[in-house]
Amino acid sequence: MAARQWLPALTWIRGYDRRSLSEDLLAAVIVSIMLIPQSLAYALLAGLPPEMGLYASILPLLVYTLFGSSRVLSVGPVAVMSLMTAAALGSLGLSAEDYLVAAMTLAFMVGALLFLLGLFKLGFVANFMSHPVVTGFITASAILIAFTQVPNLLGISAHGHTLPEMLPSLLETVTDTNLPTAVMAALTLLWLFWSRKGLAPLLVKTGLSASAASMAARVSPVVAVVLTTLAAWGLDLGAQGVATVGDVPTGLPVFGLPSFSPALWQSLAGSAVLIATIGFVESVSVAQGLAARRRERIDPDQELIGLGAANMATSFFGGFPVAGGFSRSVVNFDAGAATPAAGFFAALLIAVATLLFVPLLAHLPKATLAATIVAAVWSLIDFSILPRAWRFSRADFQAVTVTIVLTLLAGVEIGVASGILVSLVVHLYKTSRPHVAVVGEVPGTEHFRNVARHQVQTHENILSLRIDESLYFANTRYLEDMLYAMVAERPRLQHVVLMCTAVNEVDMSALDSVIEINERLQELGIKLHLSEVKGPVMDALQRSDFLQKLSGQVFLTQHQAVEALKP
Amino acid sequence: MAARQWLPALTWIRGYDRRSLSEDLLAAVIVSIMLIPQSLAYALLAGLPPEMGLYASILPLLVYTLFGSSRVLSVGPVAVMSLMTAAALGSLGLSAEDYLVAAMTLAFMVGALLFLLGLFKLGFVANFMSHPVVTGFITASAILIAFTQVPNLLGISAHGHTLPEMLPSLLETVTDTNLPTAVMAALTLLWLFWSRKGLAPLLVKTGLSASAASMAARVSPVVAVVLTTLAAWGLDLGAQGVATVGDVPTGLPVFGLPSFSPALWQSLAGSAVLIATIGFVESVSVAQGLAARRRERIDPDQELIGLGAANMATSFFGGFPVAGGFSRSVVNFDAGAATPAAGFFAALLIAVATLLFVPLLAHLPKATLAATIVAAVWSLIDFSILPRAWRFSRADFQAVTVTIVLTLLAGVEIGVASGILVSLVVHLYKTSRPHVAVVGEVPGTEHFRNVARHQVQTHENILSLRIDESLYFANTRYLEDMLYAMVAERPRLQHVVLMCTAVNEVDMSALDSVIEINERLQELGIKLHLSEVKGPVMDALQRSDFLQKLSGQVFLTQHQAVEALKP
Repeated sequence: MAARQWLPALTWIRGYDRRSLSEDLLAAVIVSIMLIPQSLAYALLAGLPPEMGLYASILPLLVYTLFGSSRVLSVGPVAVMSLMTAAALGSLGLSAEDYLVAAMTLAFMVGALLFLLGLFKLGFVANFMSHPVVTGFITASAILIAFTQVPNLLGISAHGHTLPEMLPSLLETVTDTNLPTAVMAALTLLWLFWSRKGLAPLLVKTGLSASAASMAARVSPVVAVVLTTLAAWGLDLGAQGVATVGDVPTGLPVFGLPSFSPALWQSLAGSAVLIATIGFVESVSVAQGLAARRRERIDPDQELIGLGAANMATSFFGGFPVAGGFSRSVVNFDAGAATPAAGFFAALLIAVATLLFVPLLAHLPKATLAATIVAAVWSLIDFSILPRAWRFSRADFQAVTVTIVLTLLAGVEIGVASGILVSLVVHLYKTSRPHVAVVGEVPGTEHFRNVARHQVQTHENILSLRIDESLYFANTRYLEDMLYAMVAERPRLQHVVLMCTAVNEVDMSALDSVIEINERLQELGIKLHLSEVKGPVMDALQRSDFLQKLSGQVFLTQHQAVEALKP
Repeated sequence: MAARQWLPALTWIRGYDRRSLSEDLLAAVIVSIMLIPQSLAYALLAGLPPEMGLYASILPLLVYTLFGSSRVLSVGPVAVMSLMTAAALGSLGLSAEDYLVAAMTLAFMVGALLFLLGLFKLGFVANFMSHPVVTGFITASAILIAFTQVPNLLGISAHGHTLPEMLPSLLETVTDTNLPTAVMAALTLLWLFWSRKGLAPLLVKTGLSASAASMAARVSPVVAVVLTTLAAWGLDLGAQGVATVGDVPTGLPVFGLPSFSPALWQSLAGSAVLIATIGFVESVSVAQGLAARRRERIDPDQELIGLGAANMATSFFGGFPVAGGFSRSVVNFDAGAATPAAGFFAALLIAVATLLFVPLLAHLPKATLAATIVAAVWSLIDFSILPRAWRFSRADFQAVTVTIVLTLLAGVEIGVASGILVSLVVHLYKTSRPHVAVVGEVPGTEHFRNVARHQVQTHENILSLRIDESLYFANTRYLEDMLYAMVAERPRLQHVVLMCTAVNEVDMSALDSVIEINERLQELGIKLHLSEVKGPVMDALQRSDFLQKLSGQVFLTQHQAVEALKP
């Protein structure tokens, strides 16, 4: 049992049969064909040589197969994390060689962090990101990613990781546009966007089954890669200014150590935390969504271990930070992957492709990869969250707006950190002002209702308050402030009764606060009482000396309290 | 009304009469006598020349009189903020002159921050610090402060702002102890500690009234200052190695600008945020506690404006960060201050004292001031929070332990920041795993109870879940995970009913999550229903398209739901 918990692969390897094998093999073929251009493109996006994308696609898939809890999550380079890698490393001013080592180091740090969080079962920290913040961040990142690719699409050189950095740079150099590059990029983009919607129906008309046509449409980027590479080679487009990938080293990735320089670790620490958070949140969302469709489940802490191991593994073989991607996992799922072995086979296929085809990449135009990236991130841009959030709640709207604006203007790291912060602050703000109602008895019943909304009976010497929130540090001061204000308005008051029906928890700040309130009221000759205290809260109060200090009593019901205290 | 809101002084100035005047004057005399040695000592603690303590005691009192909402809060240098100032500036490696300017700049930044928070009514941010964290932080700071004074008490030189920095330095130099300094420090400490408990009863025996005796005992530090200064002068202790304050410039503080260098602001920004937080939390706690004793109230946002204005004002006249201190405010309260005018008069008296007595400070031994500090912070050390927190809740115990240990070992800034962080993480951890009960109907009633605790009736095709927490981003993933796990275990399930009696709020993350759950369940042929939804939650749901998407119904009561859905 313990071994299975650590190595989820053991749960499916025993029952593995020929049928699963054939399903997994088919999925692996489709996924690996789709992954090859994507991996090259995302390495480019991260500011790395394209072959590193292939390297980062092999080991993570193998390692995740053993440690991951999702049956269909496909782990490798993803767009947003590649952009974040570029943002983290770009500001350090490194030489090309140091940049590679820094990328591997970042992958190691991200992996170690995720692994440790998983080991200590701290997966819940991913919950600190609210859905609107994640959606806003992904949208803004996708826009940034699209802009970073414009220079590659036009054959110009511009730079930056935020809109204020990129726009002036783009405007300055746009006149240098290389026409052959731009034309080829435009054709590639047209093909990619058209093939998404138009290719599958066309293939169905030629007799292909609907699912086969949909799969075939998914691999349209490979067609673009092959055709533009042939065109660049045949028409010698390099001579006309079309930038190509150029010579890349052949062979599989070789072992290499990430750096353990304290200075580098210190400067990458913040980025590693943010990249790890985003990678984990994206992976778990995708894995959970897909698992639920098959009545399966995933274990978030095991996912942390799987992703952590995948990142650490790739950091020793020329990789950069990876995660479970949405589009690649969906393709894997739709292609019918039965077990994680599909990922294992895909890794093998990519390794074979790396050995065989890397020399052919020399003539692959960078514009093709840029177009692949733009087409991939285009579907991530989703502004519908803004009107939805506006209608639903101002707090969520603020969080998503801050995230989008700051990501675009100040970059991915500040954007995501601000998003998390705003979510937390907004949540604390809301719970720091709980709904508190002065209540009175509905005549002829034992029910108590808000005096502002119902015709109820109250007594001048009793103040009955119902608090609709757990009491904890963020709202104790508000409670004190409100209670003292109410007491100051009621000169004949003798008893305050706190009705605790909705108090699920009392922390020590709240306990200290109630003790303080009890003392202050006692000095004014007013007794404090509690009513309808829940079991766990009563247990906690009994572990302190509060009940000995309480000037009044604890009543089972509010009705009993009022009966005992009324004049 | 608007003017009164901005300038609370207008509310009491009109009704000001002779009786208030005499009460305020008496309080002012007692407070200013107590404040003079304290101000000198805290300037020393902050690493500044002692006269700056006097400067920082004049303007803040005047300005707070106009803008503050508390009638008795006494604003000026306080121990913990002086230590934090020393920690913030000590690490910058500044020349003596730049150090002064940096202290003024820090006061300006703290003031501007507090003022802006008040203007935007963001006083609630102070709630992010839980009571145990504040208590732990104050205790650890007091220990650090006592250690920083040991060199002055023994006439040796040692340095550092954390225990690991100070202890080796102290052990190395302890053999250089100057005997006359140590003897005088010991006598002063004995006098200060004895006078707290022993002086008042003695004075009562000589015929003084109890309250007069208590007031007289409060000014015992002034007696120590006068006697040791006379001793140092008469016995020429300076020649025997007793360090004295030395010549200080006479006259009132003169106008000077804080620095607006971006580099300095950047390096002080984090410290300013932490100092402002601690200063505000301490001031509001003291002000709220004292106001409640007289059935008065304070306005936390107005306090921010008052404290902000006080800090900004002092930053232009040679001051450093100030706040409302506990001991000084209690003395003001006990001495019978009727209105903030007491603070105004105290400021005038300190100004006069500054003009007249500063030349006399030349012979004041630094050891006397150090003894005053140690005696003042001794009463802040309170480890009783540890066993109380241990008994009450492990979460609070963790927060307070982290705060104390990190403050002692890594300094005030890391200590307080970690304390805030741990409080937040612990709170989110708790609410991220809400109590969720599978419920069934108590036979013969319409009540639903936890199936694990009661004999209740359930149906194989219905899963009824009661969620005991508001649904928000921190717990949506947990809910999804648990729900999918339960669904995976129940092959005959047709209906899931979420009973929302304890759901006070649903944020957008939770909404998205419930929509996702609804879709996933629908794919499995399971309908999702809600029951007992509270009014505000229903309003929010109606602002979204959730109710159109919901595969099931919203039932008024859980009983109606089960009646409608049972086989």
